Amino acid sequence: MTTATRCSVAQQTLTKDLLVKMHKYWQAANYLSVGQIYLLDNPLLKEALKREHVKPRLLGHWGTTPGLNFIYVHANRLIKERDLNMIYITGPGHGGPGLVANAWLEGSYEEFYPSIDRSAAGMQRLFKQFSFPRGIPSHVAPETPGSMHEGGELGYAVSHAFGAAFDNPDQVVLAVVGDGEAETGPLAASWHSNKYLHPVNDGFVLPILHLNGYKIANPTLLARLSKDELTKLFEGYGYTPHYVELKQPTFNEKLESFEEIHTAMATMLDTVMDELTAIRAAAKAEMDAGKPITRPKWPMIIMRTPKGWTGPKEIDGKKVEDYWRSHQVPFSDMTPEHVAALQTWMKSYQPETLFDETGALKQELVELAPAGIKRIGSNPVVHGQVTKDLRMPDFRKYEFKFDKPGTASCEATREMGKFLRDVMKDNEDSRNFRIFGPDETASNRWNNVFEVSGKTWFADYFEADKTNDYLSQDGRVMEILSEHTCQGWLEAYNLTGRHGFFSCYEAFIHVIDSMFNQHAKWLKTTREINWRKPVPSLNYLLTSHVWRQDHNGFSHQDPGFIDHVVNKKAEVIRVYLPPDANTLLSVTDHVLRSRHYVNVVVAGKQPALQYLTMDQAIKHCTKGAGIWDWASNDEGGEPDVVMACAGEIPTMEALAATDLLRQHFPDLKIRFVNVVDLMTLQPEEEHPHGMSDREFDALFTADKPVMFAFHGYPWLIHRLTYRRNGHSNIHARGYIEEGSTSTPFDMVVVNQLDRFNLAIDVIDRVEKLQKTGAHVRQKFVDKLVEHEQYIAEHGDDLPEVKNWKWPY
Amino acid sequence: MTTATRCSVAQQTLTKDLLVKMHKYWQAANYLSVGQIYLLDNPLLKEALKREHVKPRLLGHWGTTPGLNFIYVHANRLIKERDLNMIYITGPGHGGPGLVANAWLEGSYEEFYPSIDRSAAGMQRLFKQFSFPRGIPSHVAPETPGSMHEGGELGYAVSHAFGAAFDNPDQVVLAVVGDGEAETGPLAASWHSNKYLHPVNDGFVLPILHLNGYKIANPTLLARLSKDELTKLFEGYGYTPHYVELKQPTFNEKLESFEEIHTAMATMLDTVMDELTAIRAAAKAEMDAGKPITRPKWPMIIMRTPKGWTGPKEIDGKKVEDYWRSHQVPFSDMTPEHVAALQTWMKSYQPETLFDETGALKQELVELAPAGIKRIGSNPVVHGQVTKDLRMPDFRKYEFKFDKPGTASCEATREMGKFLRDVMKDNEDSRNFRIFGPDETASNRWNNVFEVSGKTWFADYFEADKTNDYLSQDGRVMEILSEHTCQGWLEAYNLTGRHGFFSCYEAFIHVIDSMFNQHAKWLKTTREINWRKPVPSLNYLLTSHVWRQDHNGFSHQDPGFIDHVVNKKAEVIRVYLPPDANTLLSVTDHVLRSRHYVNVVVAGKQPALQYLTMDQAIKHCTKGAGIWDWASNDEGGEPDVVMACAGEIPTMEALAATDLLRQHFPDLKIRFVNVVDLMTLQPEEEHPHGMSDREFDALFTADKPVMFAFHGYPWLIHRLTYRRNGHSNIHARGYIEEGSTSTPFDMVVVNQLDRFNLAIDVIDRVEKLQKTGAHVRQKFVDKLVEHEQYIAEHGDDLPEVKNWKWPY
Repeated sequence: MTTATRCSVAQQTLTKDLLVKMHKYWQAANYLSVGQIYLLDNPLLKEALKREHVKPRLLGHWGTTPGLNFIYVHANRLIKERDLNMIYITGPGHGGPGLVANAWLEGSYEEFYPSIDRSAAGMQRLFKQFSFPRGIPSHVAPETPGSMHEGGELGYAVSHAFGAAFDNPDQVVLAVVGDGEAETGPLAASWHSNKYLHPVNDGFVLPILHLNGYKIANPTLLARLSKDELTKLFEGYGYTPHYVELKQPTFNEKLESFEEIHTAMATMLDTVMDELTAIRAAAKAEMDAGKPITRPKWPMIIMRTPKGWTGPKEIDGKKVEDYWRSHQVPFSDMTPEHVAALQTWMKSYQPETLFDETGALKQELVELAPAGIKRIGSNPVVHGQVTKDLRMPDFRKYEFKFDKPGTASCEATREMGKFLRDVMKDNEDSRNFRIFGPDETASNRWNNVFEVSGKTWFADYFEADKTNDYLSQDGRVMEILSEHTCQGWLEAYNLTGRHGFFSCYEAFIHVIDSMFNQHAKWLKTTREINWRKPVPSLNYLLTSHVWRQDHNGFSHQDPGFIDHVVNKKAEVIRVYLPPDANTLLSVTDHVLRSRHYVNVVVAGKQPALQYLTMDQAIKHCTKGAGIWDWASNDEGGEPDVVMACAGEIPTMEALAATDLLRQHFPDLKIRFVNVVDLMTLQPEEEHPHGMSDREFDALFTADKPVMFAFHGYPWLIHRLTYRRNGHSNIHARGYIEEGSTSTPFDMVVVNQLDRFNLAIDVIDRVEKLQKTGAHVRQKFVDKLVEHEQYIAEHGDDLPEVKNWKWPY
Repeated sequence: MTTATRCSVAQQTLTKDLLVKMHKYWQAANYLSVGQIYLLDNPLLKEALKREHVKPRLLGHWGTTPGLNFIYVHANRLIKERDLNMIYITGPGHGGPGLVANAWLEGSYEEFYPSIDRSAAGMQRLFKQFSFPRGIPSHVAPETPGSMHEGGELGYAVSHAFGAAFDNPDQVVLAVVGDGEAETGPLAASWHSNKYLHPVNDGFVLPILHLNGYKIANPTLLARLSKDELTKLFEGYGYTPHYVELKQPTFNEKLESFEEIHTAMATMLDTVMDELTAIRAAAKAEMDAGKPITRPKWPMIIMRTPKGWTGPKEIDGKKVEDYWRSHQVPFSDMTPEHVAALQTWMKSYQPETLFDETGALKQELVELAPAGIKRIGSNPVVHGQVTKDLRMPDFRKYEFKFDKPGTASCEATREMGKFLRDVMKDNEDSRNFRIFGPDETASNRWNNVFEVSGKTWFADYFEADKTNDYLSQDGRVMEILSEHTCQGWLEAYNLTGRHGFFSCYEAFIHVIDSMFNQHAKWLKTTREINWRKPVPSLNYLLTSHVWRQDHNGFSHQDPGFIDHVVNKKAEVIRVYLPPDANTLLSVTDHVLRSRHYVNVVVAGKQPALQYLTMDQAIKHCTKGAGIWDWASNDEGGEPDVVMACAGEIPTMEALAATDLLRQHFPDLKIRFVNVVDLMTLQPEEEHPHGMSDREFDALFTADKPVMFAFHGYPWLIHRLTYRRNGHSNIHARGYIEEGSTSTPFDMVVVNQLDRFNLAIDVIDRVEKLQKTGAHVRQKFVDKLVEHEQYIAEHGDDLPEVKNWKWPY
């Protein structure tokens, strides 16, 4: 622990000259931040400020900004002096003005946005665009150079920082965490990421917890703990917290009053960088000696400075600086008094000492920033510019072979795991592929991956681990029982150009619904930014799905993530429901090669019947949806009914229903359609994978009854197809929130997705069966009664159902 | 810090006799737990165990259960000795067998399920039903007596515990937190709940962090920290951690080997209860002296016992006890060797010493459990049996008055806040109403509530708080920047019979999507359990909605929570979109009186036009959807077009579009329909609020074009109405993920929900306008161009749009 006072006494990192310049650079960033929030014109305040120079609508956030600017200027010194490769994760919401200001000062901004150049006119445009319609948001956003983290929804700064650091040993990731954000669950869990960071093979993460004391309208919890509690909390999390604390607010005060805090911060950053370097050296020595690495106590900084620092102390007699009132625009009712107050505030930064006549930053200050891609705003790693393709083994060679469709069984995700194992192996030297899961890698049957990589673990090892737990200090399998942390790590791993797969129980992926939203929005926006390049897609395997919760029951049943996903922009969303192992392999290959999507793959992990050879699977997946001729008897002609399905279990039930119907109604012409790529169902104008109406009708007909057995909530099928010609003939079955701990077949029965109900539905809907089929219909009803009796007695499914195989 | 050894030396809480009995009681619970997992018959093992006595499908979880049983028997002693009113929150997933076993032993179970009585036959049925089709789940579930917390999705044990303790001063809430669960974000954040608990006016929360060391297939993080780190972590969180640790596994060992741990646990529970009592007394003394209460260091217990404790040490040569292999069914391949191993295991509990000939627990053990409603399994507080209605002020008196519809403005949620203030005031003495929000109460305009209650705060106070921050040690407004914690608190507050409202930014309510899922599932299941009574509904106000993110932009825009909600069972879901203040007041009154629903209320917080008088609002809300005659000109006859809307902003745009159309096409007959209760759109067989087709057609017609301006994603309207006669005529507009930081009107323009686009849609769809309307259509197109130009120049909306009022 080191306080500001102790630091400034202990060391003199900064010469007086450098200190003065850094202070000015900071003041320049603050000036530009205030200007962005307030000014439409008169950017250099060359004339007296008038109401018409101020924006008509004042929208933006000041509170966190000066602290972020302070850190930025100190980060610049560190980068320059140590030639670091550093990125800056801005946890606090609404830090936009600060990061934009700094990117402008260092020249990154004008390289991406030539019209916003470092001139008075450029400064005016910089000010105007901020929080202006069709301009840029008040958060650090995709539009902000150097960013890979949106400050909009809070909680992910630390997991993003670690995700960016994994496998990037030369990277320093500075992560500023706001004390508001620190109250969130995802953030609170993610501090434990330090048990997953390799001191030699991964980069450095330097968290700065910024205690500015207030949120929108409340104090923050962490700023209101005793220092003893706060220190213990972070020591408990496994860090060595270092303090940089400002003792008193400083608005309008002279440079001397800032000297202490600048010195403290500079000294502390040097101290911390030295610690990090020493940690790496010690770990390297242990590695070289063939010893396990001792988990380091990673350094972090707790910086306590006032919210709205350097802003007005009071407005209209009410406390603003060091208080929540500085959160947004400190005053927005632009009375003449307030216009004058704004001028006083902005002049307090002495713009004439910061910018020259043309509006450019004075040369002596320009030199403080690093150059080229060392500038935080120009680091290619966060702009998608460093992606390296995966070396992909040929997925065809993992084909699950069988004689006849629907007769042999395997666990689809286990076959996928073999493929992933080799993806991992083939890219070992690139160190750019990892898999993520909340304690579910083995449960989800990816065990083969452990043949080539262990599970990263820097917490304590026990004797028992030596047997076969695959724990490893250099693993590529990331397991923590926090979906939030897994998601945050993978998002950042992707955004910095690396590849991965997240396997999760289907129901619990909803834990990260909101993170998905933010990531999808990030992808949508960055697609439209030309200096950002496409990044690897975020890939989900959802398994342990709704239909196979034999152990877990109702709480583990929710197939609605798909519904959530399809609300986002079609350009970035893909949803796949491969019905068997070979289709899953084909989809896996495809999604790992894809860029800038969120790919949701839903597949089974339990033994299940297999249908398509690899050749068939590739063709089927390429089309996304198609007729299975071997299961149809319409012989290329017009069918009486279409039996459609999507998903592993519905496919089996639809096939079994087809079998029943063909047994009892040999003349009934059934067309069997399977959908792998769910988005093919949407009209082509709504999703890039959408079928044309002609293609849709060619599969589903425009006028025949369609039974659609669906993996998820049935109404999603209607939502996707409501514009189709034959929509009124589509009858969808799916999960309707029924059932709990039960057998696989009982689950489909209680949700009316089973073979008997599907067959009954067909009889009820095909005109020519409505009379002639009554007897058979009754048979199927009787079968359902028989099921009820059998399960109550035996706790198991009817043998004829359990042992069913495709007979043709 | 106290270790087991130190305890047993320090004190002798238990007599030897009591210790022996408690140990036996624990063994009985363990025996019943194993029996539930494995046995179909032969419950007392009176004959040699055979394969046919074992269930055909073995599904369940053993690992956490013995630890939970251990805590239960110790809790029983505490309850009896101190006459406590205690509930038991079971954080660890899959603790079902243990809690069910204990409820059976104490007699709670047979009172709720008479056929599962304490006899050999009852025991057989107890065993059979567990994890059996149509039986009970492997988690602590709604079916489990004494439960109010599902162990299915992890992360909420601590927030639930605090929510149950608020305003229940006589309640002791024992909360067992698994070390798997402890890795989740929501749990990590919720430890800070101790800054919100009043030591006198609220109940006691006693967290027991159960370090059993393993999850499904991995070690747990917290069990692999150094003891120093672990202690600091919890001291940092504001607790005094006390340790109860077993040093070595104990399968098949004699009682003596358990003596130490029983003694340690009993002593520790006494110590902790004494601490809690002392904390309360000290706080009371401070209160009586008129001083602020010093935030206590709340005690907690960290209990380290092996996973799968007392189970088989090894199976097939592989470590099971004290290892992740004991997580589920330790062995399920029932070879003769395994059948024998199961018999050995179960016999190790010496059932003949625990149960008499009839299968009943021996009388000397029965006496260990508390009686009546003091039994954990019979506590009425978690069974919905203690709900007290709110005293409701007459909401009509909060009417926002105006002369003409669509001409006066107010902030709807601010009016709601006045009503909530008085709800809070009128129920002050019952202490059964609180409001919850992630730092958003003021932002969401509920400020008037602060007139009667402050914001709960037990963290440090600063000088600046004295001015007007409404921080209070006895507040009823709960603010923490963790949606998860707010949600967990409120769920438990509801489940224990109290009332509340959660206000949240619309986009970020997705943070708790998965918690909502679990709560909705809990409500669905408990509806069907006759010994559980309806609890107050979980009420959300979603505001700061998608259309008014002027400050925040794209990251804050997501109206999809409704889509998520409507996937759950119709019986427990209600969604309201009141278009103005008076409808919001009427809805607020309704939802606060309702029971056992999740009510989602979406409303605006920005100044907006007002439409309905209170009388009109009540009628409109009662029907849920209706024609606004004053805005229609079809004069009760058949219209040419229906202009429909739901939500504040869409209602205004639809009215403005109607105005435009009436100006330009005075002969066009427009019917204006507003929908408040979204679920009225669904067919009556799908939702209890659903309209019949006849009612639907009477509003929307069966064949006329319907323009539907919707608050959320437009396809939701199609998903709700796809079965309606006129569905193919419905054209829905809503949010399509466009726009960012911009003006209110620009947001609707870029999402094509604005008045001009709506009017153009009508022209394009009403046959008689298609030719004659071309000129007007072009006018509207020109207006959109004019908007583009105006906003680019002025950063603001066209004055005619900004100042629009309903003119008729």
